[in-house]
Amino acid sequence: MDSVEEEMFHVRKLEISDRNKGFIELLQQLTVCDFVSEEAFQERFQEIAKYGDDHLICVMQDNKHNSGKIVATGSVFIEKKFIRNCGKVGHIEDVVVDSSVRGKQLGKKIIDFLSDHARAMGCYKVILDCSLENIPFYEKCGFKQKEVQMVKYFI
Amino acid sequence: MDSVEEEMFHVRKLEISDRNKGFIELLQQLTVCDFVSEEAFQERFQEIAKYGDDHLICVMQDNKHNSGKIVATGSVFIEKKFIRNCGKVGHIEDVVVDSSVRGKQLGKKIIDFLSDHARAMGCYKVILDCSLENIPFYEKCGFKQKEVQMVKYFI
Repeated sequence: MDSVEEEMFHVRKLEISDRNKGFIELLQQLTVCDFVSEEAFQERFQEIAKYGDDHLICVMQDNKHNSGKIVATGSVFIEKKFIRNCGKVGHIEDVVVDSSVRGKQLGKKIIDFLSDHARAMGCYKVILDCSLENIPFYEKCGFKQKEVQMVKYFI
Repeated sequence: MDSVEEEMFHVRKLEISDRNKGFIELLQQLTVCDFVSEEAFQERFQEIAKYGDDHLICVMQDNKHNSGKIVATGSVFIEKKFIRNCGKVGHIEDVVVDSSVRGKQLGKKIIDFLSDHARAMGCYKVILDCSLENIPFYEKCGFKQKEVQMVKYFI
């Protein structure tokens, strides 16, 4: 990516006006994400904002094609522990890049941004869960395979 | 476990006085957990308490042997998302049972307590990461293997 493209796709925090820039449609490429009303979006946005820097959602906006569309996102929240000398751990979640702009390393920029945030917040590590086919991508981002994710669904 | 034992090992929330009942020593059986001063413990306890029901740490106290020692613990925090209709996910962390009381299914009681809390908080799922050898235990608790945990250490 050259410096002009860099500028066109810079990472910033999610803003309350991003719902109307395709943020929800982008999440739909990741998993089940139903229609989210303006009211529901604002309420959840404010709930997350209460955590301040302990729960950060970042986005990349496509300024290149003048669409202003949100084309990548990811989140990290900071867990406070007693172990590791009252340490903190960053948990990365909900990373997705729009199918139209894949191959430009936007995903890596998102992961680097979230990892840097976790490190700046004093975390001793940052973790995430991914599918088998995404392991090589996260290895390129400096991650190593560790444990196994277990899940219990309620619905 | 009979009903008398049930009473001897009931699950409750972590209290600020638990540091002196072996809570830190218990965590040391899990991983690196340095000495935590009374001041550092209280500060971290209050930081976590600010999250209210969104970050719960539970413990089991050994009332059977009159030691009053904390013999099991686990935590869960509730992540707020936009996906899944502005859904919530419970993240279980730092589960450990004292080596002296293993085999009494205290671990399962801890996991059930944390899972029930996540469900009551409206989570659509609860997740955790474990080592390969602990998969059978979590399967008995109703969990299924899903993804791969990736980690990046800063220190």
